[in-house]
Amino acid sequence: MIELMLIGIGTGNPEHLTLQAIAALKRAELILIPRKGADKTELAELRRQVCATHLDGRARLVEFDLPVRDAAAPRYLDGVQAWHAAIAAVWAEQIATCLPEGGRVALLVWGDPSLYDSSLRIAERLQAAGMALRVEVIPGLSSVQLLTAAHAIPLNTLGASVLITTGRQLRAGGWPAGLDTVVVLLDGGCAFEVLPPEGIDIYWAAYLGMPQQLLLAGPLASTGPRIAALRAAAREEQGWIMDSYLLRSSAVAPGGLR
Amino acid sequence: MIELMLIGIGTGNPEHLTLQAIAALKRAELILIPRKGADKTELAELRRQVCATHLDGRARLVEFDLPVRDAAAPRYLDGVQAWHAAIAAVWAEQIATCLPEGGRVALLVWGDPSLYDSSLRIAERLQAAGMALRVEVIPGLSSVQLLTAAHAIPLNTLGASVLITTGRQLRAGGWPAGLDTVVVLLDGGCAFEVLPPEGIDIYWAAYLGMPQQLLLAGPLASTGPRIAALRAAAREEQGWIMDSYLLRSSAVAPGGLR
Ligand SMILES: C[S@@+](CC[C@H](N)C(=O)[O-])C[C@H]1O[C@@H](n2cnc3c(N)ncnc32)[C@H](O)[C@@H]1O
Ligand SMILES: C[S@@+](CC[C@H](N)C(=O)[O-])C[C@H]1O[C@@H](n2cnc3c(N)ncnc32)[C@H](O)[C@@H]1O
Repeated sequence: MIELMLIGIGTGNPEHLTLQAIAALKRAELILIPRKGADKTELAELRRQVCATHLDGRARLVEFDLPVRDAAAPRYLDGVQAWHAAIAAVWAEQIATCLPEGGRVALLVWGDPSLYDSSLRIAERLQAAGMALRVEVIPGLSSVQLLTAAHAIPLNTLGASVLITTGRQLRAGGWPAGLDTVVVLLDGGCAFEVLPPEGIDIYWAAYLGMPQQLLLAGPLASTGPRIAALRAAAREEQGWIMDSYLLRSSAVAPGGLR
Repeated sequence: MIELMLIGIGTGNPEHLTLQAIAALKRAELILIPRKGADKTELAELRRQVCATHLDGRARLVEFDLPVRDAAAPRYLDGVQAWHAAIAAVWAEQIATCLPEGGRVALLVWGDPSLYDSSLRIAERLQAAGMALRVEVIPGLSSVQLLTAAHAIPLNTLGASVLITTGRQLRAGGWPAGLDTVVVLLDGGCAFEVLPPEGIDIYWAAYLGMPQQLLLAGPLASTGPRIAALRAAAREEQGWIMDSYLLRSSAVAPGGLR
C-alpha cells in the first residue's frame, strides 16, 4: 500500500507552509522533487529549500525530470492527457524503485493542490492502473489568495460571485455576463487585452511570495499596457514568469449580479 | 499610526496556521477577539486556543461583542452596510482605548481574509473616517480549499473555469450557463434543492477542520436529501452549523465551456 501525500506549499515563500504541511513532510519516507527544465530550476531549488528547512533527514529526497508537455499537440486537451500519462509513468517508476514494500510518499505541490494542478488527476491514473494508492491532500495557500493579500483587496464584492478562470478561457469567451469579478491564472500572455477596458480595474502580480515579486494595479485602460511592458521585461530578465490577476468591473450593478 | 494585521487562521484546526501567520501574531501588541453570540462561543474559543498555543504573552488580548446583523432589514445589502458601520465603530473604540499611541493590532480572520469576509471593508471604513491605518493581509486556508482537500478532489476540471458563489445567488440565478463547477458558501439552507439534479455531483462538508467534521458526496439526486437531513440533525445537535459544497455537472461538454 502506498500513501501519497499531496502537500500544498504556497508559492515560494517557505513561510507560506502550514503547521499541517510541515508535519506531513516529516511523516514522509520518500519525497519526489520534479525538475521542470532550465527556466524553472529556481522552483526546484525552492522545493529543496523547503525540505532542507523543515526535514530532519529521515525522508529520502529523489529528483526526477518532469516530462515536457507537447505544446504543438493539435488539440490542447489531448496534449495535456498525453502529458499526464507520461508523468504517471514516471511517478510509478520512482515509487516502485524507492518504496518497493509500500510506504509514505510526498509531493510538494505549488500553491494549493486543488487549483489548476494535475497531481490529483495523475494519482487517479495510478489508481486506475491498479496501484494500491491512498491519497491525502494537505491544502496550501494558492496564488489567488496571495494575489488578493498582496493587494489587500477582497476577492468578492459584497455577497457577489467570483469566476476563477484561465487566460485561454478569457480570450475565448470575453467578460462573463452578470459577474463583477474575474480572477485569471495560466495566462501565457496578456489575455486581458481582449476586453473593452472601460469600467474595469486590474490587480496584477508576478512572482508572488518571492523576493522579485511585482505588483501593479489600476484602471485596465491605463494599467494594461504598463503590465504588458513590465511583464515582457521581467520575463526577459528572469527567463520565466508566473503571474495572475484579478479584474473588477464597476459596470455590473450589484442588483444585476446572479 | 495603527498597523492592522488581518491574519487568516484557517477554519478551526490550529494546524491550519502558516508560519507567516504565527510570526504576525507574535508581532501584535493588541489582538481583538470578537464574540459572536451564544451559538458561536466555540469559534471564539478556537481563536483563544490559537493565541494560547502560539503567543508568548506579550500581546494584549481583548474580547469584544460583535454587533449583530439585522436580518430583518428590508434590503439585504442595507442590513450588511449598517452592520459594518457598527463593527467599525467598535473596532475604533477598542483601538483608541488599548493603543492610544498607535501600534500593531491583529484580528484573527476565519479562513482567508479575502473570501466572503468583511474585515477589509471595515478597515476601509476606518480609513475613510480619517484613522491613520496601514492594513496588512496574511492569507489563510479558506473553506473552499479545505472542502476540496477533505474530498481529495480538484477544484476545477481540466483547464475549465470555476464559479464561487453564495446560497443566495444560486437560489436567485440557478446553474450558471457554460460552467461545470460551482462552489457555494454562505448558504443558510440547502440552495442546491433549486437545481434540477440530473448530471450533477455534490461534495458537501460541514465543520471543516474541526473534530465534528462531516462529509457527504455523491449524485445530487440521491445525496441532496441525505445532506438536508444530516445538516438539520447536526445543526440541532451543535446549535450552529457552517457548511460549504462543490457542485460538478457532467452535462457541460469541455468544448462548451467558456
Ligand atoms: C499550474 S497553475 C498552479 C496554481 C497553483 N496550484 C496555485 O494554487 O496557485 C500555475 C498558475 O498559477 C499562477 N501562479 C502560480 N504561482 C504564482 C506566483 N508565484 N505568482 C503569480 N502567479 C502564480 C499563475 O497564473 C500560473 O500560470
Ligand atoms: C462569512 S464566510 C467566511 C469564509 C472564510 N473567510 C473562508 O475563507 O472560508 C462563512 C462561510 O464559509 C464557509 N465555511 C467557513 N468555515 C467553514 C467550515 N469550517 N466548514 C464548512 N464551511 C465553512 C461556510 O459556507 C460559511 O457560510
